[in-house]
Amino acid sequence: MKLPVSTEWVLHCATTLAQLDPGASASAAQLAQYYDLPAAYLTKQLKALVRAGLLAATTGPRGGFRLARPASEITLLQIVEAVDGTSSPYECREIRQRGRGALPPEDCRRTCVLAEKMADAHEAWRRSLAGVTLASLPPSAPSRTRLRLAGTV
Amino acid sequence: MKLPVSTEWVLHCATTLAQLDPGASASAAQLAQYYDLPAAYLTKQLKALVRAGLLAATTGPRGGFRLARPASEITLLQIVEAVDGTSSPYECREIRQRGRGALPPEDCRRTCVLAEKMADAHEAWRRSLAGVTLASLPPSAPSRTRLRLAGTV
Repeated sequence: MKLPVSTEWVLHCATTLAQLDPGASASAAQLAQYYDLPAAYLTKQLKALVRAGLLAATTGPRGGFRLARPASEITLLQIVEAVDGTSSPYECREIRQRGRGALPPEDCRRTCVLAEKMADAHEAWRRSLAGVTLASLPPSAPSRTRLRLAGTV
Repeated sequence: MKLPVSTEWVLHCATTLAQLDPGASASAAQLAQYYDLPAAYLTKQLKALVRAGLLAATTGPRGGFRLARPASEITLLQIVEAVDGTSSPYECREIRQRGRGALPPEDCRRTCVLAEKMADAHEAWRRSLAGVTLASLPPSAPSRTRLRLAGTV
């Protein structure tokens, strides 16, 4: 059970964008240099965050990415699911209905209890990440971030 | 983020073994027929549960697998981690220490707050599954299970 490597990238990039002045944006190239990441693949991930409504992409010479809504309304769960999807890591293929032990369909109208317990665990994971917004993370050093991101230091 | 397909297999097989008479066992071939699963690959997974101390393997003509301890002392978490390991799905590669924005080592003595929040979520998932024992699952039809497993019906 593994999340994509880019999960770390988008979590950090979103955290960094949350430190910009309101309305300011950073380009994928700037973010890629800031964290030493492959720019093309990072761009693809940032666009996934745009599609999820978490980031807004602006065009033009000073264009780039910025938060699409306040940091208090963006959760870690939304960011993670924007790049990895929302499906549970556990896949129930209904083996209870197969083989010599196959249960009759009428005994399988309810979700399998094992699938249910695995879904409960996934919901616990989701709830934990849904409880953390970008705004709730401990304060960082936004002025340093802005300068380094702009490449002026 | 995906658990191996065999997660469903081992959860169901352990649940089935929990329905046997004390001391009774079922062979990998019987379990494979019971759920229509590939016997060789299932055997490999069941052996992982033996290594984890959850199942005991007995040899001889009536040999096979049985629970290594009471069903009340075997949790879904132990079963899942026996085949998928214990590591968190989130991998922190410390990108905060890389690139133009690299933080100095003295600012990185504590775990990254994002890695911490992802670890919290993983712990919530683990706690959820650790709270479910094989004994706590709703009762099934053990006599049917035993007959079908033995291939006598």
